Amino acid sequence: MINNIKTIGIVGGGQLGKMMILDAKRLGFRIAVLDPAKDCPCHAISDEHIVKGFDDLDGYLELAKKSDVITYEFEHINVAHLEELVKRGHTIYPSVASLKVIQDKLWQKEALSKAGIAVPKFEAAKNIDDLYAYYDRTQKPFFLKSRRDGYDGKGNYMVRDRADIAKGYERLIGKGAKQDTSDRLMIEELAHFEKEVSVIATRGQDGECVIYPIAENVHKNSILDTTVVPAAVSKKIVGKIMDIAKQVMECFGGVGTFCAELFVNEKRGEVMVNEVAPRVHNTGHYTIEAVRTSQFENHIRAIAGLGLGSTEMVVGASIMKNIIGGDGQDGVVAYTGIEQAYKISGVNVHIYGKNEVKEGRKMGHMTMTGKSVKDVWGKLDKVNVETTVRSKNG
Amino acid sequence: MINNIKTIGIVGGGQLGKMMILDAKRLGFRIAVLDPAKDCPCHAISDEHIVKGFDDLDGYLELAKKSDVITYEFEHINVAHLEELVKRGHTIYPSVASLKVIQDKLWQKEALSKAGIAVPKFEAAKNIDDLYAYYDRTQKPFFLKSRRDGYDGKGNYMVRDRADIAKGYERLIGKGAKQDTSDRLMIEELAHFEKEVSVIATRGQDGECVIYPIAENVHKNSILDTTVVPAAVSKKIVGKIMDIAKQVMECFGGVGTFCAELFVNEKRGEVMVNEVAPRVHNTGHYTIEAVRTSQFENHIRAIAGLGLGSTEMVVGASIMKNIIGGDGQDGVVAYTGIEQAYKISGVNVHIYGKNEVKEGRKMGHMTMTGKSVKDVWGKLDKVNVETTVRSKNG
Repeated sequence: MINNIKTIGIVGGGQLGKMMILDAKRLGFRIAVLDPAKDCPCHAISDEHIVKGFDDLDGYLELAKKSDVITYEFEHINVAHLEELVKRGHTIYPSVASLKVIQDKLWQKEALSKAGIAVPKFEAAKNIDDLYAYYDRTQKPFFLKSRRDGYDGKGNYMVRDRADIAKGYERLIGKGAKQDTSDRLMIEELAHFEKEVSVIATRGQDGECVIYPIAENVHKNSILDTTVVPAAVSKKIVGKIMDIAKQVMECFGGVGTFCAELFVNEKRGEVMVNEVAPRVHNTGHYTIEAVRTSQFENHIRAIAGLGLGSTEMVVGASIMKNIIGGDGQDGVVAYTGIEQAYKISGVNVHIYGKNEVKEGRKMGHMTMTGKSVKDVWGKLDKVNVETTVRSKNG
Repeated sequence: MINNIKTIGIVGGGQLGKMMILDAKRLGFRIAVLDPAKDCPCHAISDEHIVKGFDDLDGYLELAKKSDVITYEFEHINVAHLEELVKRGHTIYPSVASLKVIQDKLWQKEALSKAGIAVPKFEAAKNIDDLYAYYDRTQKPFFLKSRRDGYDGKGNYMVRDRADIAKGYERLIGKGAKQDTSDRLMIEELAHFEKEVSVIATRGQDGECVIYPIAENVHKNSILDTTVVPAAVSKKIVGKIMDIAKQVMECFGGVGTFCAELFVNEKRGEVMVNEVAPRVHNTGHYTIEAVRTSQFENHIRAIAGLGLGSTEMVVGASIMKNIIGGDGQDGVVAYTGIEQAYKISGVNVHIYGKNEVKEGRKMGHMTMTGKSVKDVWGKLDKVNVETTVRSKNG
């Protein structure tokens, strides 16, 4: 509808896709989604839903046929199939070349490092002997990481001592693995940091780059729990992070919204990139209510070749809290606390529309906005939206 | 999903419904829509679309069956069918009783008048003789209005002199009408005013009422062209309008978002209600970008029994400009000027997704936001999004 782009194709039908679509629809775009789940969060708000698996080339071809530009809402997708689409002349943002590098944590860190961006020390590990050799050399605990497909802490194992190495190797590779593991693992030092923060940036097709206010993140069980904005870091660190955000976008030639998760060590004045995601990000959900233009709208504007919107905050502070499936939960979901939440001014509840709750599954989030971080924490103290199991599976 | 309400049913699938749905989806609701047009703006973003006419009781019954609460996005719907739903125990907001009164401009003015709210002088006209009698008595031009189904100036006729009466009567009733016209027409004095403004208010099920900043409206060919917020009226007038907004909501016992269009005469310090709409309104579109909580979100929160959000502005000023089908346009639509519009910070373009443009048809709107009204007019000077016909019909 807008300029020469009528339909946006999205690989993945989860909550990130849903929030993209809600902004894309205001702008007048048609939407096609590829996702194997019939009842995924994007299903009801898409013009077309291709119900095919993420490893099925036919699904990608069908999506491409219906779309003027293709994007994705998660990064663990079949790059070979995307490359096939590029070969056939389809347009994909962010670029498949950068996705391919980012998908592999080793290649990602190598690219960042090469671009002069600080990252924790890392090296490849081709086999278990490399792990023993690293430990014997350094005598220090380290992170053992799967190079691919990790999320929410899955694929990471903290090796505390020499005896942990075999356990970690088995956890990430599988018991008595016979296959070649030479491109599957990497080693990363344990970085010393006080704060985990993230920065969202969007880059247009013309190279215009906008950067969002820095978010401070707290994880529970390796899953994001809360994001506080603005992050409590010094001006000097803010400046460093803004520079890093630009460097990251240029390093990957990103078009669209990206997120860089960072470790901050104020004492040493150090900032290191932990991970880059070539997509809209959970730590940027606060931008829907708290910023003039959300990370989702700017993503759509970027991939459609439109100018980008202001990333200025419209409130003093904001906290985002995830609504996550509780211990042992497995079944049809219900929610408690929503009515109470809406009694407090400056609270918004987002429910993604997933039918079933599972332990650790992201089911929704709340965004609190107000004058100051203290003010917003006060609001969060009064709200408690939780999942419950309405009826069990099986 | 939220509290005991899972699915919201909407009568009407146009742009007002679409903007309601985009906010309702964030909150996690399922959506069912009743609209005879297969490709209406709500189609692609609804969980269920019942493609049936607005006079077909079956459609209403099907909608009710799928919905936990029912609302509507335009007011010219079949009240008898809605009454049937109420009889069968379904919940409809705003109430059918108030809709019934508001649908009839005579009854609406009588209700407002009875509640002590100032309106232009009016009276019923049972036949053409009543019109002649009125003119002979007053010797003044007047508005001849259809009591029902008018919108965008349709159904209104300005009688300038005695000779105009027969013309106006024929225009509104039809040539040589034989049917009983005794409940179809009303007379209204020409009010003296300097400004047309409107005020949007939302009332919750518990009586909580929030009122939006006052909007100043300019019509072209009886169709809304621009809305400027804040309206340039004195503090005294603002106070009067806020009082009127509350009175209107209480007069109709409204639950949901309503709009009152008003005439302002600053010299006399007078405010009169021109018309009330029991729904979200074109003059409230600016609330999406310019206000903390949009008129659409608050409507959904009200009908779902949730607390209402702040109506505080997040910018200094805003102008909304409609994108309307131009002279003689009739065919498949395309747009010009969108890329240019997005180059200017603080401009948002909404495209409703209607396939065909017709002269006078509302196809989209732009919202400009900035520090001051002057600043925002400056932005509007630089943007010009227009419809064109891509291919003709027929």
